[in-house]
Amino acid sequence: MAGNTFGQVFRVTTWGESHGTAIGATIDGCPPGIPISSEDIQSDLDRRRPGTGGAASPRKEPDKVEILSGIFDGCTTGTPLTLVIYNKDAHSRSYDYLKDIFRPGHGDYSYLMKYGIRDHRGGGRASARETAARVAAGAVARKLLAFHDIQVVAYTMSLGGIDAENIDFSAIAQNSLFCPDMEAAARMEERIIQVKQEGDSLGGIVEIVATGCPPGLGEPVFNKLDADLAGALMSIGAVKGVEIGAGFEAARMTGSQNNDQLTPDGFTSNNAGGILAGISNGDPIVARVAVKPIPSIARSQWTVNLENEPVEINIGGRHDISAIPRIIPVCEAMVCLTLADHLLRLQTLEWTPEHFELDEE
Amino acid sequence: MAGNTFGQVFRVTTWGESHGTAIGATIDGCPPGIPISSEDIQSDLDRRRPGTGGAASPRKEPDKVEILSGIFDGCTTGTPLTLVIYNKDAHSRSYDYLKDIFRPGHGDYSYLMKYGIRDHRGGGRASARETAARVAAGAVARKLLAFHDIQVVAYTMSLGGIDAENIDFSAIAQNSLFCPDMEAAARMEERIIQVKQEGDSLGGIVEIVATGCPPGLGEPVFNKLDADLAGALMSIGAVKGVEIGAGFEAARMTGSQNNDQLTPDGFTSNNAGGILAGISNGDPIVARVAVKPIPSIARSQWTVNLENEPVEINIGGRHDISAIPRIIPVCEAMVCLTLADHLLRLQTLEWTPEHFELDEE
Amino acid sequence: MAGNTFGQVFRVTTWGESHGTAIGATIDGCPPGIPISSEDIQSDLDRRRPGTGGAASPRKEPDKVEILSGIFDGCTTGTPLTLVIYNKDAHSRSYDYLKDIFRPGHGDYSYLMKYGIRDHRGGGRASARETAARVAAGAVARKLLAFHDIQVVAYTMSLGGIDAENIDFSAIAQNSLFCPDMEAAARMEERIIQVKQEGDSLGGIVEIVATGCPPGLGEPVFNKLDADLAGALMSIGAVKGVEIGAGFEAARMTGSQNNDQLTPDGFTSNNAGGILAGISNGDPIVARVAVKPIPSIARSQWTVNLENEPVEINIGGRHDISAIPRIIPVCEAMVCLTLADHLLRLQTLEWTPEHFELDEE
Amino acid sequence: MAGNTFGQVFRVTTWGESHGTAIGATIDGCPPGIPISSEDIQSDLDRRRPGTGGAASPRKEPDKVEILSGIFDGCTTGTPLTLVIYNKDAHSRSYDYLKDIFRPGHGDYSYLMKYGIRDHRGGGRASARETAARVAAGAVARKLLAFHDIQVVAYTMSLGGIDAENIDFSAIAQNSLFCPDMEAAARMEERIIQVKQEGDSLGGIVEIVATGCPPGLGEPVFNKLDADLAGALMSIGAVKGVEIGAGFEAARMTGSQNNDQLTPDGFTSNNAGGILAGISNGDPIVARVAVKPIPSIARSQWTVNLENEPVEINIGGRHDISAIPRIIPVCEAMVCLTLADHLLRLQTLEWTPEHFELDEE
Repeated sequence: MAGNTFGQVFRVTTWGESHGTAIGATIDGCPPGIPISSEDIQSDLDRRRPGTGGAASPRKEPDKVEILSGIFDGCTTGTPLTLVIYNKDAHSRSYDYLKDIFRPGHGDYSYLMKYGIRDHRGGGRASARETAARVAAGAVARKLLAFHDIQVVAYTMSLGGIDAENIDFSAIAQNSLFCPDMEAAARMEERIIQVKQEGDSLGGIVEIVATGCPPGLGEPVFNKLDADLAGALMSIGAVKGVEIGAGFEAARMTGSQNNDQLTPDGFTSNNAGGILAGISNGDPIVARVAVKPIPSIARSQWTVNLENEPVEINIGGRHDISAIPRIIPVCEAMVCLTLADHLLRLQTLEWTPEHFELDEE
Repeated sequence: MAGNTFGQVFRVTTWGESHGTAIGATIDGCPPGIPISSEDIQSDLDRRRPGTGGAASPRKEPDKVEILSGIFDGCTTGTPLTLVIYNKDAHSRSYDYLKDIFRPGHGDYSYLMKYGIRDHRGGGRASARETAARVAAGAVARKLLAFHDIQVVAYTMSLGGIDAENIDFSAIAQNSLFCPDMEAAARMEERIIQVKQEGDSLGGIVEIVATGCPPGLGEPVFNKLDADLAGALMSIGAVKGVEIGAGFEAARMTGSQNNDQLTPDGFTSNNAGGILAGISNGDPIVARVAVKPIPSIARSQWTVNLENEPVEINIGGRHDISAIPRIIPVCEAMVCLTLADHLLRLQTLEWTPEHFELDEE
Repeated sequence: MAGNTFGQVFRVTTWGESHGTAIGATIDGCPPGIPISSEDIQSDLDRRRPGTGGAASPRKEPDKVEILSGIFDGCTTGTPLTLVIYNKDAHSRSYDYLKDIFRPGHGDYSYLMKYGIRDHRGGGRASARETAARVAAGAVARKLLAFHDIQVVAYTMSLGGIDAENIDFSAIAQNSLFCPDMEAAARMEERIIQVKQEGDSLGGIVEIVATGCPPGLGEPVFNKLDADLAGALMSIGAVKGVEIGAGFEAARMTGSQNNDQLTPDGFTSNNAGGILAGISNGDPIVARVAVKPIPSIARSQWTVNLENEPVEINIGGRHDISAIPRIIPVCEAMVCLTLADHLLRLQTLEWTPEHFELDEE
Repeated sequence: MAGNTFGQVFRVTTWGESHGTAIGATIDGCPPGIPISSEDIQSDLDRRRPGTGGAASPRKEPDKVEILSGIFDGCTTGTPLTLVIYNKDAHSRSYDYLKDIFRPGHGDYSYLMKYGIRDHRGGGRASARETAARVAAGAVARKLLAFHDIQVVAYTMSLGGIDAENIDFSAIAQNSLFCPDMEAAARMEERIIQVKQEGDSLGGIVEIVATGCPPGLGEPVFNKLDADLAGALMSIGAVKGVEIGAGFEAARMTGSQNNDQLTPDGFTSNNAGGILAGISNGDPIVARVAVKPIPSIARSQWTVNLENEPVEINIGGRHDISAIPRIIPVCEAMVCLTLADHLLRLQTLEWTPEHFELDEE
């Protein structure tokens, strides 16, 4: 049973292969009346494109999105939206030498084991290119969230072992790594250049914050808001860890240190990351993800071919040094999709009380 | 839209409140022909019960499970199983003094915001008692996995800041904290006693390993095996972080360090934690969770009441010092449920190729 | 992938075998704040029990329902409800002679083909007894609908070839067949007695009407309200046909005859049965189902045994002559469940417009 | 919660408006290894297009399908397929005069009530044009079924009150109404011409037969095969009734007449329509649907406008006289989709027994 659909009420199905005809997303469950244009979507997509930063690959996909359905007079109609991005700059040929070998750190081996068929052209569905469809769909979710004054922003907290320390959110927009510490950002860029020369790649940590969330989002017990966020974020290819609020640090704290006490003015701390017992408590929702280094490196590695013979592999092609910063709008998109879904899920439970009151009159 | 059901094919719905009549689980989608008895389930449940370890609370629920449906002649029939555990030792009265105040670190506040109604008796659905139903359902999943020689085991890697270091898996069964390092276990027990005297509580880290998984489990792109594991584990109340394989450490590695190279004898390392591009690769699946300290502590804390007035709270009742070790069978159960679901999901995609061969004749 | 769950938002899972320990229903997605007691449920269940009418079998199950979860202070809490009915009067032994043969018209053959395992005790999940769980869950849905002043009622339009002709709804409560034509009801009763003497059984037609439905229920395109009603009603064991409004008669009409024209006072007719393009239009929703005759008859029939040898079968046990009238509350329950689900589904789409207005200010 | 997705394992989402940019279908859950080309899909689509028969409208959409994803080297890969049909011949302007009035028999009124927004251009999602996407997706399902030697065919049993009587399946391909009675087909054509002159329209009955189905398809209790077929077929716009096997006739039979007795050579009759207790029994699956007359007629009708004032309406545009025969491939598609889904759902339950045997060794 395939798994290309995300969400229960705001449901997104992404489709398309890295080197096929097109990639896209189909959204079912978006309420009517939301003004949305392809420009709204494009601006998020453009943030995911190869930038000028040293971490980026030179692939030049315009990633131009078209809306095929679901919009009338500039607004959603309540019917499904389909967003399509045609593939233009797909050099399938350049992957032909990979046809018979498994790239370390990639899904080549596990995909073949699963399907018995292999689309070796740049990873197929496992390609990071699939995330463009997520970003497109996330842009629609973001518009929906904006009605509730919910904002989602992500930024780089660590890259190549260098941590952001003096946090200044106004710095995020001022460097190509979206790091809230200009000084750290500069050192990260240096580290990227150094590692690029070494033919290697880097991982890092991205933090995502959602502000303006009303209390009440999240469904006990399996669809807790943090559970769904963790699943959403871990579904991004390069992510190997997710934590909420104090996260792994909480494992080393005592209860008196970790508990967020309440005052008439709100919580005194936010170790919970805005989520108590799986339900939003009105404080900012804070999540962090561990991003592994890009597996495609310009160094010789050992692997096997389809006959299970050892071969040395040297991966060419166009590859980033780090999934950061391009993964940042993807993280935002997954959080937007999760929150939009839970906002709509909430409606089904909020309904009765208002009528209940009528009934009691 | 409520969230009490887990899984797509092997679907478990848990139900029941901590201090209601009963708690239980209903499983739909379990294949026929699996021998299962209430004793099989009971043995997992007993591991979740208050033990003799210093971390445990004195609540004495026998947690006796009954199978109400789905079994005939000792085997599953393909119809739904309902497992029930009647509540016996529920002291609802002892919670009356909490009726109007919000316990720090608990879901009291967020539940009231969500439902407009509050079941203050021991947390209702947010109570750790709900996890007994997960363990019961997980025991059925474990039997299903055993057909494929898949084993799932969890153990304590860290508690109260003390880490297991000299790992010896044979030690796990020899200490009440299920720690694979006897010496660390002893220090953890000391730390528990100390913190108990201080009226405080502790968090820790649990590692879960699944061995024997065939390659091919996990569905691109949103239902990757690691994504579903992350969602499953994060849905456990006390969990604030999940990582797979190298996890957050991967964020600080380079690609050449993190990539698991392949040889004719298999992968040379397992930083991937057995999952590549969201699909199992045949290596052991390794996950770790961060467990926050128990929020109910025997220390005075500040909070507010329903009128948003500041009040001091001193939580009585029966509480553990740490969710570890009782959370261990719960972690195992969630991994068993996830793997059982993905084993069955896999079937729907494996089907055609065999018939395809027939067609080619 | 099993199919024991009904509904998308108001989700009911029924479980239990005819001659197992218990049968029951677990409801996830019921909003908080609905007052409900076991008596509310019991009154619907009692209508499904063997009555005094000649069509009834003598099995005397008290069908006493207990609520195991989801209620606090007499109201739903938003958490799952589990309703259980323990089996008391189950004579499994009396089915032993059926162990090796397939009863004509029953699911014995198809169940064995599917599961490779057979629970011959009274049909297992295929037994009409399973519908008691539907009626119990339907009673909860009915309470939810009552908040919106939606009423659902079903009655006998035809039985054994005798049709209700002079419709008087006040008659329904005055005869044991729930027929809106007292004179026809009397002839139906005679027909039942006659056919009972002949060792045979009868089918009939039940009509279900829902009044008070707001316009807007039903989701294009696959979950049209009529599509979901058809699926819901056809899922009742004995039902072989479903029609909405003019139904099969519409196939013989012209457009000018069938179209319901509109006036400022509403539609001039209701051939649509209250549903236009799959969405309720505010008029009464009208459905009819064809109920096949009870397959267990006191006449000799030919069948085969597990070795595919011809055998003559004479079915003993306790059997009704017709599924009518006991099927009537089951039909109502399925319509209640469908409407409750669609009422809640509607919420997820109604949400935005109100906020949209705010946005336009 | 929107309803544009069909199926549990073989999941189809259709999208697109009658007069928008494109319509299409996204299929998730199609197994890998199925050879499929756009020509395979096109041939089914062409059967749904306006033909030369008198019942057809002159709209000339080429309905050219493109496959955007999910195919590699001519075969499915296990990843989602997206099929798109761009709208070419959409005369939105010609619908402008309908902007403020509700067409009798159409969804104009109920859609506006639901969404508060109205796409008046030819019905939007309610347009029969949406069914082209179903036919495209159904063609993929048909290929999957062909691996199991399952064939699905539909034909006209009644049109404008004229019934097929002397059934000869070889006749179906020889007349434009796909009627298995050449003589009846001729009279149906005459009736169409006559009614066209009268500015009216006609309904009819379509029968669908699936041969080659293995026993075991269908999931008790809510997703019985007949329940899902009923929901699938009733989700087609013009359908007002569905029956299986003897259908409504069964309501007038006795048990001894209706029961299909078994012999070593199989069932002696097929009143069950191939489905017993919701599970296929190996006999041909037989369903019939009642198709209402086309609501757009060239006669003056009364309706109201948005101000609820009475207005006379005369519908121009391009309209068929009957949904038959164009609805025939749509009926086939919905049955193909239902059967494909159940074939794959079956796999999840068949899995264990084979391993169970291994275990018993």
